[in-house]
Amino acid sequence: MKAYRNDLILQAAKGQLTSRNPVWLMRQAGRVLPEYRASRAKAGSFFGLLKNPALAAEVTIQPIEILQTDAAIIFSDILVIPEALGLPYEMVEAKGPFFPKTIAHEKDMDALSLQGVSTLDYVYKAIALTTEKLAGEVPLIGFAGAPFTIFCYMTEGKGSKTFSLAKKMLYTSPALSHRLLHLITEASILYLKEQVKAGAAMLQLFDSWAGVLSPEDYLEFATPYIRRICDALKAEMPEVPITVFAKGAYYALDDFAASNCDVIGLDWQTDISFARLKTKGKTLQGNLDPSVLYSSPENIRNKTKSMLQKAHGTPFIANLGHGLYPDIEASHVKVFIETVKNFSHENTGQ
Amino acid sequence: MKAYRNDLILQAAKGQLTSRNPVWLMRQAGRVLPEYRASRAKAGSFFGLLKNPALAAEVTIQPIEILQTDAAIIFSDILVIPEALGLPYEMVEAKGPFFPKTIAHEKDMDALSLQGVSTLDYVYKAIALTTEKLAGEVPLIGFAGAPFTIFCYMTEGKGSKTFSLAKKMLYTSPALSHRLLHLITEASILYLKEQVKAGAAMLQLFDSWAGVLSPEDYLEFATPYIRRICDALKAEMPEVPITVFAKGAYYALDDFAASNCDVIGLDWQTDISFARLKTKGKTLQGNLDPSVLYSSPENIRNKTKSMLQKAHGTPFIANLGHGLYPDIEASHVKVFIETVKNFSHENTGQ
Repeated sequence: MKAYRNDLILQAAKGQLTSRNPVWLMRQAGRVLPEYRASRAKAGSFFGLLKNPALAAEVTIQPIEILQTDAAIIFSDILVIPEALGLPYEMVEAKGPFFPKTIAHEKDMDALSLQGVSTLDYVYKAIALTTEKLAGEVPLIGFAGAPFTIFCYMTEGKGSKTFSLAKKMLYTSPALSHRLLHLITEASILYLKEQVKAGAAMLQLFDSWAGVLSPEDYLEFATPYIRRICDALKAEMPEVPITVFAKGAYYALDDFAASNCDVIGLDWQTDISFARLKTKGKTLQGNLDPSVLYSSPENIRNKTKSMLQKAHGTPFIANLGHGLYPDIEASHVKVFIETVKNFSHENTGQ
Repeated sequence: MKAYRNDLILQAAKGQLTSRNPVWLMRQAGRVLPEYRASRAKAGSFFGLLKNPALAAEVTIQPIEILQTDAAIIFSDILVIPEALGLPYEMVEAKGPFFPKTIAHEKDMDALSLQGVSTLDYVYKAIALTTEKLAGEVPLIGFAGAPFTIFCYMTEGKGSKTFSLAKKMLYTSPALSHRLLHLITEASILYLKEQVKAGAAMLQLFDSWAGVLSPEDYLEFATPYIRRICDALKAEMPEVPITVFAKGAYYALDDFAASNCDVIGLDWQTDISFARLKTKGKTLQGNLDPSVLYSSPENIRNKTKSMLQKAHGTPFIANLGHGLYPDIEASHVKVFIETVKNFSHENTGQ
């Protein structure tokens, strides 16, 4: 195993109580940093940044230098998987992703193929380049969307409050839905393995749209595929920690606890004390409400300390309960990070 | 107390196990019915319908005749309260509500006054007219937004995924936030009492945006005001059942159970078995995923029965876990209602 100058996050992910809590932020490489906006302007477009390994590596490393987080996360997008499978998408300014074609019938599946995962070479190159530039400073996190979330986009074709088209398909064509979920799962396994081979030291699955399903449907259409991904990765690369972050799926905590993942990411609607009861043996990650970073430094400090106090005594990776909002001031993000870094010293004397 | 030919919903709300579960749907008066669309066209605009008591009564009664639900709910809008307080709004086609002015500073509060609640006469007239036309067939439900949800609109000025402006105000100006929440609460108490005097037999509070807060913040900024409304209403009109429906606030179930409400409405992300453990002594309402109504009649029947089985043995009002989506077929809504009405007969022999 590779050694890092700062491997706090790997220690915590493996269930160790660390001298202080490691900290990083979902969407830490992004619009919150002026340096990111400069790189993005240089790239000309979202895809220009995404598909240029040198620029992707550049923005991945920015938060390590500027915010001094304890991990980097590769700058990429969860929707590269549908694109690799054969379903391309556009990024519409101020609206988000849009798929001109979607999957609605059996015949639409014919256009999809696992072969395309090899076209994601630009991601693997970005990871290799980032790993080289990080030079063992901190670990790099790789990621993928969880199968249900990817399914949502491939069937609905765009973001939605309700994902009613996606859910209609689950209910009216369960066999076809499972076929698509299975394909996404296999693609994700290949993809995540390649990310590790390229240099990722940890992996995270994002189930961003978990919250649109009922508990019953989540256990039918989402959890089994997350578990399959964890099992497949653990069989081949047991030393690589896996985090599952399913926004809105508080009721699935026991199910994740019974899975082969190492870390369970919490959204800010989930109380850490509640989660601890449900997830014994797992490391927790989260879960400050990102909106707290809009408020005063004093309030950020208080809310961050309150979060760390609740997690005290359990392996814990400090983070937000969702991605960083792009209009938050970088100086406020620093207050959050500094509060985490100073906390254990104050409270444990270590 | 007034007598109804069908008072199943009042029996259930008061904690009785009923011969069959009463059923109604949030947003049952609405675009799903062609008859509603005709009335809406006649009115010319959303406000034309809202502020015309005869037309509001007409669309309130439509689902009783067409869908044969066990209760009517007055056709109105939660945002009439900010308007009555002195903060008018517009309804932007395909976008939703928009407030040209919002509350951001102490001085903005000067424009607001409780006096305006008397300008809501058009709602009271619509309730009186509906009650007259219902002629004791089924009870009429009155409603208001819960104070936190109304606060969201008055500070953010429009719908939002994150309500970050509203939350920023909670964190940076807690005293001002509490002042505004208090004013909304007092207005809601006056408003709901007048609805009962006009003929409403039950009341429901909608906390539609509960899900944007953390459990800690919800207990600080939302629950105390809901409890204050329940207490004030119960002190004066103890026979009128009150329902609290807070979407996304699964963690607050114990708190609602300890409040003076009678019924707790569940969203579809909350498992009924989980809720039963937390809410002993209260009636439950809900919680079929509205998207299920997009699917086949067979699937609607199965999912509805599964919901009713979970609720079996507890006082229960069948409903969806959120408002009816406007593009659902009315025939599918009927399948849901018929399944509920036939269920207890099949299962208890009554």
